[in-house]
Amino acid sequence: MAKIGVIGSGSWGTALAWLLCNNGHQITLWSFLPEETEMYKKYHQNTDKLPGVILPDNVVYTGDLAEACKDKEMLVLAVPSPAVRATAKNMKDLVSDGQLIVSVAKGIEESTLFTMSDIVEQEIPQANVGVLSGPSHAEEVGRGLPTAIVAGAHDRDTAEKIRDCFMSPVFRVYTSPDMKGIQLGAALKNVMALAAGIADGLGYGDNTKAALITRGSAELSRLGEAMGIHQRTIFGLSGIGDLIVTCASIHSRNRKAGFLMGQGKTMDEAMTAVHQVVEGVFSAKAAMELSNKYNVEMPIVDEINKVLFEDKPARDAVNDLMQRDGKDEISEWD
Amino acid sequence: MAKIGVIGSGSWGTALAWLLCNNGHQITLWSFLPEETEMYKKYHQNTDKLPGVILPDNVVYTGDLAEACKDKEMLVLAVPSPAVRATAKNMKDLVSDGQLIVSVAKGIEESTLFTMSDIVEQEIPQANVGVLSGPSHAEEVGRGLPTAIVAGAHDRDTAEKIRDCFMSPVFRVYTSPDMKGIQLGAALKNVMALAAGIADGLGYGDNTKAALITRGSAELSRLGEAMGIHQRTIFGLSGIGDLIVTCASIHSRNRKAGFLMGQGKTMDEAMTAVHQVVEGVFSAKAAMELSNKYNVEMPIVDEINKVLFEDKPARDAVNDLMQRDGKDEISEWD
Repeated sequence: MAKIGVIGSGSWGTALAWLLCNNGHQITLWSFLPEETEMYKKYHQNTDKLPGVILPDNVVYTGDLAEACKDKEMLVLAVPSPAVRATAKNMKDLVSDGQLIVSVAKGIEESTLFTMSDIVEQEIPQANVGVLSGPSHAEEVGRGLPTAIVAGAHDRDTAEKIRDCFMSPVFRVYTSPDMKGIQLGAALKNVMALAAGIADGLGYGDNTKAALITRGSAELSRLGEAMGIHQRTIFGLSGIGDLIVTCASIHSRNRKAGFLMGQGKTMDEAMTAVHQVVEGVFSAKAAMELSNKYNVEMPIVDEINKVLFEDKPARDAVNDLMQRDGKDEISEWD
Repeated sequence: MAKIGVIGSGSWGTALAWLLCNNGHQITLWSFLPEETEMYKKYHQNTDKLPGVILPDNVVYTGDLAEACKDKEMLVLAVPSPAVRATAKNMKDLVSDGQLIVSVAKGIEESTLFTMSDIVEQEIPQANVGVLSGPSHAEEVGRGLPTAIVAGAHDRDTAEKIRDCFMSPVFRVYTSPDMKGIQLGAALKNVMALAAGIADGLGYGDNTKAALITRGSAELSRLGEAMGIHQRTIFGLSGIGDLIVTCASIHSRNRKAGFLMGQGKTMDEAMTAVHQVVEGVFSAKAAMELSNKYNVEMPIVDEINKVLFEDKPARDAVNDLMQRDGKDEISEWD
């Protein structure tokens, strides 16, 4: 049994708190908004973002970051990715030397191309930072449906500590030292989810979507190679695994926004229609910058950027991808 | 414009004949059953297996294998995999030295573990054999929906010749020397489609399915490594690409049979219910034999075999997979 602080009470933070409670840990759940803390105290659930996932009576709800951090063996940082830097700044003086922080937000900081764990390490240098990522809809984790995920850390002991806290009969945790690769895949899959959504919106079929996912992951694999990321991470749970779950999901905002663009809406119209931030739009920019920085050919990323930012019709983008010169899948001819 | 014989007039043979006609080639389509030849002469389509995909007037329909093979620059062998050896035997004396045969059937010969191209080369040693495979529902190819696929051959010239015949604005062909890898992925994906179907039948969610696909492809990757197959093939169009399209498809017989087993039916009951041969059942056996032969750990293949052949309840198999000892995704710790 460990004392664990979960920082952030959205759907993912709540699902992980529920899982950790079931594993016998003592959870303190921190909410940014006072009204969310009140909601949890009254209903023991997030009635808005993850209704029906009821936390047990022994969970402590708080809006006080110091109370959430103090004397905890592990902190789970589950705020949305744009809020990670500000939240980490606020936590800086509350975290003890070597205290374990597990970052579970997905994204890359747009202006700097830093991963979320980079940001936490910059803001809280005394922390021991790990990550947890993989194909994991919060709605399914909160219903106890079998899920597999990967825990990353700089050293094996930390990764295994994270694993031992989260692992359960319905939540299988693999371990890995490739923190950068885990977070890159998690952020960039949203670009490919946009592309898959566009194909669906154009009325194309499963063949097209499978081709986009496969050739999209080949682009991420080339980028990963240039960045020193392990190929097995790109093709692992946090990479293609999360890409598959996102592209298949009718709930994904990125897929939905892509679908609307495939049907002829502009990026702005699509973003207005889904009422929410679409991470894939920012990830598309970040992917383009990484493609240029590492000098890696990424034709799908390229075309998605033209659709998003240069008003290129989606159908023309697909046509141009299909009609490039023929390429090898494997080039090692005898 | 090339003269091409398409040997086999099921849904895939018909879709490829349609595509090749659209590319300006002169097609002779061979049917095994005289009544199928009559059907084509009358309706210019396979009204049973691919209704609505109408072939142009200049296609020649025949039940005479010699007519289908004679003077053709390329032969497309599109009979079902269990019929490949017998058909190749019958073609032996009809094929000229160096004549190109493209094998498009998916499967591994159960008794020998030979690929389809191995079989064709054994039976027709004078032929120049290539393969074509990838995520490609015939129904979608026959409607002109964008599709990407891989052409394999022993030498680049042959692969590019195959590519140049098939490639079109809606059908993109990549080239590769890895014929064995292309065919292994195409055959073994059906095992994982069975597993994905079982998870769906048990009422599990997208998280479980993505985990099975990802960890399943990690098993195939380990097997491929032991067999000298390129990792990019396992994670390419004919590997994970075809796996994604099969696991997503509501039409896949393998997924459907798995679904019924997940709901509690035995293998025999499931196979009776889908009215057809379920290749994944044979592929599961072949995968188990390859796993033993190459001494590669394949826990999902192992559990699927127990469900299929030892009456292990599917729920117990999933539980046992989830509760194995913790593993690394990447093991290269500093």
